Amino acid sequence: MSSELQISPAIHDPQGQEKQQQAAGVGILLQIMMLVLSFVLGHVLRRHKFYYLPEASASLLIGLIVGGLANISNTETSIRTWFNFHDEFFFLFLLPPIIFQSGFSLQPKPFFSNFGAIVTFSVLGTFVASMVTGLLVYLGGLMFLMYRLPLVECLMFGSLISATDPVTVLSIFQELGSDVNLYALVFGESVLNDAMAISLYRTMSLVRSHSSGQNFFMVIVRFLETFVGSMSAGVGVGFTSALLFKYAGLDVDNLQNLECCLFVLFPYFSYMLAEGLSLSGIVSILFTGIVMKHYTYSNLSANSQRFVSAFFHLISSLAETFVFIYMGFDIAMEKHSWSHLGFIFFSILFIVIARAANVFGCGYLVNLARPAHRKIPMTHQKALWYSGLRGAMAFALALQSVHDLPEGHGQTIFTATTAIVVLTVLLIGGSTGTMLEALEVVGDSHDTSLGDGFEVVNSRYMTSYDDDEDTPSGSGFRTKLREFHKSAASFTELDKNYLTPFFTSNNGDYDDEDNIEQHHEERIPFTRRGNLNNRG
Amino acid sequence: MSSELQISPAIHDPQGQEKQQQAAGVGILLQIMMLVLSFVLGHVLRRHKFYYLPEASASLLIGLIVGGLANISNTETSIRTWFNFHDEFFFLFLLPPIIFQSGFSLQPKPFFSNFGAIVTFSVLGTFVASMVTGLLVYLGGLMFLMYRLPLVECLMFGSLISATDPVTVLSIFQELGSDVNLYALVFGESVLNDAMAISLYRTMSLVRSHSSGQNFFMVIVRFLETFVGSMSAGVGVGFTSALLFKYAGLDVDNLQNLECCLFVLFPYFSYMLAEGLSLSGIVSILFTGIVMKHYTYSNLSANSQRFVSAFFHLISSLAETFVFIYMGFDIAMEKHSWSHLGFIFFSILFIVIARAANVFGCGYLVNLARPAHRKIPMTHQKALWYSGLRGAMAFALALQSVHDLPEGHGQTIFTATTAIVVLTVLLIGGSTGTMLEALEVVGDSHDTSLGDGFEVVNSRYMTSYDDDEDTPSGSGFRTKLREFHKSAASFTELDKNYLTPFFTSNNGDYDDEDNIEQHHEERIPFTRRGNLNNRG
Repeated sequence: MSSELQISPAIHDPQGQEKQQQAAGVGILLQIMMLVLSFVLGHVLRRHKFYYLPEASASLLIGLIVGGLANISNTETSIRTWFNFHDEFFFLFLLPPIIFQSGFSLQPKPFFSNFGAIVTFSVLGTFVASMVTGLLVYLGGLMFLMYRLPLVECLMFGSLISATDPVTVLSIFQELGSDVNLYALVFGESVLNDAMAISLYRTMSLVRSHSSGQNFFMVIVRFLETFVGSMSAGVGVGFTSALLFKYAGLDVDNLQNLECCLFVLFPYFSYMLAEGLSLSGIVSILFTGIVMKHYTYSNLSANSQRFVSAFFHLISSLAETFVFIYMGFDIAMEKHSWSHLGFIFFSILFIVIARAANVFGCGYLVNLARPAHRKIPMTHQKALWYSGLRGAMAFALALQSVHDLPEGHGQTIFTATTAIVVLTVLLIGGSTGTMLEALEVVGDSHDTSLGDGFEVVNSRYMTSYDDDEDTPSGSGFRTKLREFHKSAASFTELDKNYLTPFFTSNNGDYDDEDNIEQHHEERIPFTRRGNLNNRG
Repeated sequence: MSSELQISPAIHDPQGQEKQQQAAGVGILLQIMMLVLSFVLGHVLRRHKFYYLPEASASLLIGLIVGGLANISNTETSIRTWFNFHDEFFFLFLLPPIIFQSGFSLQPKPFFSNFGAIVTFSVLGTFVASMVTGLLVYLGGLMFLMYRLPLVECLMFGSLISATDPVTVLSIFQELGSDVNLYALVFGESVLNDAMAISLYRTMSLVRSHSSGQNFFMVIVRFLETFVGSMSAGVGVGFTSALLFKYAGLDVDNLQNLECCLFVLFPYFSYMLAEGLSLSGIVSILFTGIVMKHYTYSNLSANSQRFVSAFFHLISSLAETFVFIYMGFDIAMEKHSWSHLGFIFFSILFIVIARAANVFGCGYLVNLARPAHRKIPMTHQKALWYSGLRGAMAFALALQSVHDLPEGHGQTIFTATTAIVVLTVLLIGGSTGTMLEALEVVGDSHDTSLGDGFEVVNSRYMTSYDDDEDTPSGSGFRTKLREFHKSAASFTELDKNYLTPFFTSNNGDYDDEDNIEQHHEERIPFTRRGNLNNRG
């Protein structure tokens, strides 16, 4: 990278150093131009309602094309070094804002009202998907269908490839307008399954490096340590920030800069705290995002609320676009050995199967627990199954696996993951619109009501929980599920009666909060949902 | 630095790597906590109207204290590595936002109405100050008063130490309320002299590395290349952005995120473009800031205007505070040889003399050109002379000089600069309030009129330019100065009649623009001026 003024360096080879730094400057320049191009192209395509190439796909393609051109004209190898992409940069500056924003942009109410289902899909479902993928890849290796990896590495691959990406599919959901419950399910699942996938990956990675003297019990403990520990750290930081903003009295007009400065430091604090404690920063920052949106956010002044929403949206858009460009560029530049083709092909087949096991299995369980009028319809399950494209998180974990695993293995996983990301983003991203229409889960009736729809649906849910208690339950298993269901409902009660009043300046009255939110909503066209108006 | 999940690494010494990464996480955690502490402390001090310790000084002190504690408890040297501060990070992420914001927060009107004086102080004055400092340091070395450096290195030191910092003094000016013209002079001078100081430094550095076969003429050419080239690049990017936003039609409600993403990419583009062309990115981004504020900004939608103002203010506050903390930390941690004490003492003496030569010399020239009722009063000149504290820019250039110069020399300059920064920030920063009161340039009459005052002063200037033309001029030199003065006035005309209508959606009518600005002002309590309300 270039640093100002080093361009006039000392005695030792000033020409070479100068050239190198100039090249770095040109590289960053090119990256900025690609970013600008992506934003403009994405905008033009959206304006012309061309849903076959969403913004993420456009970014990927731009990366692919520029990478391809660079590859052809690559007489000197300098172009490769322009894009000298540091892992550090990715993990410290690109990933945290993306993950925080995915937690921060969760609308708390539809999320909490579908809490049971979302947790089932993302915790149990991701576990199932990881294991199924891992085992199938292992069996595939045994049967010489694909590159052979040890079982634990297969499970690592299974975990990392089970992290789905919310970006592309959801932007199309928003453009087209879809059922609020489906939206909440897809979004909630793809956000929380990142946390699960990371925890599984780390656990498997630990099992791998201390393979002797580990028993199954220890694996479970390790997993809980990572998942619960990181979650607690994140939630703790979130609650701390809520209390700070509640009592510091910073929501006065002329202290907005101070308020915003402090607010944006908390997510990073959460990330680094978890890392310092040997936990997962990503899982921690995700939960900090959810908690800060639900509690801290409402303690801010109205101007600051508007600002921080726009701020995190901006930062994460930039980071996301950059990641997609980079992935495209990387796959075009990388010297790929074609022996990976089999691995890629069968992996795709297996993740499709594994996701079916996840969605339809968990869907069955959830439906057992839900009363008749709230069952998740098959069309929604199919949409959820179809929405499993892979993105930044899988890529990040694959990048990680190159460090964690022996030479050839990590490289194979990385190549396969990059290919899967590119293919799923282009294919699934491009066909989501068609799929949603085919499944008839998109309709004009839902269009304008996405904002207020939450409200209606939610109040229906609230009462339906009460109805549940009267309904006599069927089998013993069903009773257990219903109890879990009720505990999710009682979390909503806990939140309403204790958490919200304690951590916010709000009195915990949901209707009140809604008025405030709706009020903001009108004035925040920055938020994802703002795109809706675009169609008209 | 830590990267997520590398915490469970491979076979080779997992314990050591794990520890190292945990330490890095803890280091960043500590930095975030220091940032939070700085913001909170600064806020508390300001709220209690304790002007002897402004925010920058508070940050410096926090850095000094933590550095001192770390130094004492430094049984293992790990703490030093926690603060492993990369030059790259500084030049790529901290400096650009600070410099851009200083250009972006320039209020165009008082700046342009004092354009002649500001340019005189910052171009001619900084040149004088650099030469005087450099020559005095060289003479001091010859007379064994201080560490002896070659003449060209003395001039490099003179250049870098002539870059003054706007932050601390101006925040106090704002708190106390001062004359608008004085404010414009101090701010304009400290912003533009950074560009001049960098260009001089680079020129001297080039002279040094190609010492043979260089004549005086080539030095001038080199200087113009850097200064004019970088300025043109910056202005060019700024104008391009203005045209893009004028015609792209992005100022619709639901495209704010796109609009803001593109807007924040331009400054970085300007920075990297200049670096890629072997020019100065810092000078370029500064002028991009001035142009984008004056033209591009008014092509944005109202919401985006509010957002980008707050965004750049936030980013630069964070960067600035971090830089001051780091400087404090660095001076506490560095192993200083006490032989530098003499160098520091005499340097301070010399920069005081050099700044006097700059301010009173240029003040005399400016007053020759100005009509009687517009002369810069001696009290203002004294205030300007006093406000010359050193900050991030001098520090950055000194950091650079460690790379550019031989071992001992660069280190001496770096130590001296850090010490000068800390001393001037603490002493001048702490006493500015007292000084302003002693000079009687602070008063309640100016307090509330800072916003509207510009207007009044400006319209008076506009007419006074016309008056000038009738007044018969005195000597031939005076005539020349008046002509320069008129050219500054004609720039204002050019801007009003051609540039503003061409680059903005505005019709170039100043009154109109003012209404818009005032309108925003009411709704942007984020801006620096918003602090004013704080006093009441």
